Amino acid sequence: MNINVIEGGVTAPKGFLASGIHCGLKKNEESKDLALIYSEKPASAAGVFTSNKVKGAPIYVSKEHLSNGFAQAVIINSGNANTCNGDDGLGKAKRMSSSEAKALNINTEDVLVASTGVIGVPLNIKAIEQNVGKLTESLSKEGYKDASEAIMTTDTVKKELAINIEIGNKVITLGSMAKGSGMIEPNMCTMLAFITTDINISPTLLKEALKDSADVSFNRISVDGDQSTNDSLFILANGLAENDEITEKNENYYAFLEALKYISINLAKKMAQDGEGATKLLECKIIGANSEEDALLLSKSVINSSLVKTAMFGCDANWGRILCALGYSGVDFDPDKVNVYFESLAGSIIVCKNGSSVNFDEDEALKILKEKEILIKVELSIGDYEVSTWGCDLSYDYVKINGDYRS
Amino acid sequence: MNINVIEGGVTAPKGFLASGIHCGLKKNEESKDLALIYSEKPASAAGVFTSNKVKGAPIYVSKEHLSNGFAQAVIINSGNANTCNGDDGLGKAKRMSSSEAKALNINTEDVLVASTGVIGVPLNIKAIEQNVGKLTESLSKEGYKDASEAIMTTDTVKKELAINIEIGNKVITLGSMAKGSGMIEPNMCTMLAFITTDINISPTLLKEALKDSADVSFNRISVDGDQSTNDSLFILANGLAENDEITEKNENYYAFLEALKYISINLAKKMAQDGEGATKLLECKIIGANSEEDALLLSKSVINSSLVKTAMFGCDANWGRILCALGYSGVDFDPDKVNVYFESLAGSIIVCKNGSSVNFDEDEALKILKEKEILIKVELSIGDYEVSTWGCDLSYDYVKINGDYRS
Repeated sequence: MNINVIEGGVTAPKGFLASGIHCGLKKNEESKDLALIYSEKPASAAGVFTSNKVKGAPIYVSKEHLSNGFAQAVIINSGNANTCNGDDGLGKAKRMSSSEAKALNINTEDVLVASTGVIGVPLNIKAIEQNVGKLTESLSKEGYKDASEAIMTTDTVKKELAINIEIGNKVITLGSMAKGSGMIEPNMCTMLAFITTDINISPTLLKEALKDSADVSFNRISVDGDQSTNDSLFILANGLAENDEITEKNENYYAFLEALKYISINLAKKMAQDGEGATKLLECKIIGANSEEDALLLSKSVINSSLVKTAMFGCDANWGRILCALGYSGVDFDPDKVNVYFESLAGSIIVCKNGSSVNFDEDEALKILKEKEILIKVELSIGDYEVSTWGCDLSYDYVKINGDYRS
Repeated sequence: MNINVIEGGVTAPKGFLASGIHCGLKKNEESKDLALIYSEKPASAAGVFTSNKVKGAPIYVSKEHLSNGFAQAVIINSGNANTCNGDDGLGKAKRMSSSEAKALNINTEDVLVASTGVIGVPLNIKAIEQNVGKLTESLSKEGYKDASEAIMTTDTVKKELAINIEIGNKVITLGSMAKGSGMIEPNMCTMLAFITTDINISPTLLKEALKDSADVSFNRISVDGDQSTNDSLFILANGLAENDEITEKNENYYAFLEALKYISINLAKKMAQDGEGATKLLECKIIGANSEEDALLLSKSVINSSLVKTAMFGCDANWGRILCALGYSGVDFDPDKVNVYFESLAGSIIVCKNGSSVNFDEDEALKILKEKEILIKVELSIGDYEVSTWGCDLSYDYVKINGDYRS
């Protein structure tokens, strides 16, 4: 199957419009802080949410609104997470969706809500309510650019991606936007991602496809191991591509699933690459594990290690820290069979063979580690399973962004 | 029971001598890198070791030598961890103990071994073998100063502590030294700690007391969440205080256990305070949990959070990050009942009540957080259990120490 990357974001599929404006949640009037995605037709819809015990108020509202499997719009604010605000927060999340529903003249249950920003500060709901009219009037095909900007917090680049595939002579388009950065950890954490598509698919299968895609993408990235309270992934499928509705796991379902995984993995990598203070995208690929679960635990342990992350920041081929992180993962393996490689566009080098040091050219290793995308490849040589996770290095700027309020 | 803090280190108890010299493992000739602790009489001995699957060679040798419950000396090198060196490493760890045994004219099985430093680089065993004579000749009561210096790696201060207590009219003395710094995590990780005592106690009870003490001290500190390959905690009890041998869990046993916990907790806090790049000692005390296990998981989750650690570095009363870390701990609790306080020598302030924001004086909070020892107190208000863990903040210098090799 061909996957074609095309221009655009969440409005790339048929029937989707978007907008993004400044409503007053962020202090800087140049900074957009309110976004809207709208489907001209009610869409099959599904969501995946944070596993954190402390959840943002918008998550409760969106879950309820998704219970019938349909939605038509998503309103998103940045600058305030509306979390740890008690009943006041819950009431305001409801008002966010009802005021937007009124502006769009649709049912409140068809409007999903997401928030990102500071925790424990009351949400300025009036700023939102006074601006839903303007937000709605601004909807357009070009609005994806403003929308993806309006959901950014400490992100340094906008994250969006659109692709198309062909299913039964129909062109199916998928669009997306996301915000990530700090506090991203496997298990859907501080990230918001929105996927739109014009495919015709039942809500049940859409939900299953979304979950399966999240497991191999958003759940496999990590910036600092902290899991946020507000992470949400939404998908809306409005059927305007006019393919025969997918209601069973046939060939067309799996073609769509492949496309959804492609867009999810690439969005996830964009988030990891833009982790707070990150200078490099890291991938840790575990090969030859006894099970997928083992491979995932080992890979996460390496990608989350502060010592591995600082070593990569310093371009230091310190494979001992990788062995060490494998060792405390809790997974059973044979340290004496482990091989470790560093790979990048500048080449590939083996630095540890059978769990021990090999003589390697330090200059060559430095050249490889100076690249912006580094693959840490670990061969366990005991089984047939392999898993990759993605993360980033740990730099001075991570500390600056998260700790430098008072200096 | 009175616990008296006295001058000295590992040689404070009767019959213990120590020494520390430069043998050539560290490049700088001024830097000591080889240490010895010696008891004039064979002692009851016990150890607790890293749970990392990848273990340093010295750990295999020391475990074997401890199997009979007795030891008389410990030889320790810094500058090389002798880990991931295969059979060569194991052979050299054995040679380290046998050469020292020969110099002391005691059995090889009575010499324990520990190493700390870089992983995966062959150990220069000749430098050690050529210097065990000098090391042994240097043994003295004052030698504790050189010994505690010789085990340092990235530590910025020497860590030692000596105390005494009275048991049945006999004065029992405990001495100790430790090295810590980076890669310290609950579960005995990159730390070496050595406790000496002249109490008369059976090897079985000594082992049990050591394990119980480690669980509430060394296993409750964290610097960066990484667990090392070489962590070892040793205790030697030579009986020269001439108390009646403790062979059952009587009043005397519990008095000794209390003293051992005191020395262990205070050594552990010294390590956390000297974490790589640390500017503050953090304590997270969970109060009112449903079980000790829950309280421990919650406390660890907060003390390990990079976002909490950077907030503390920046003196930022960002309690939302604390709620967030509690939320992803995996423990069941009611977010709406949580209260959070910051405490230090400058006062105490509540920043979150019933899971929501309270109006607090930001200047007051800043004054409290500018201190060098910060207590994060979390009331769950659901049960009766409480647990503290200790850690440190995350600063630019952590990144510098661990990542700045190439700049």
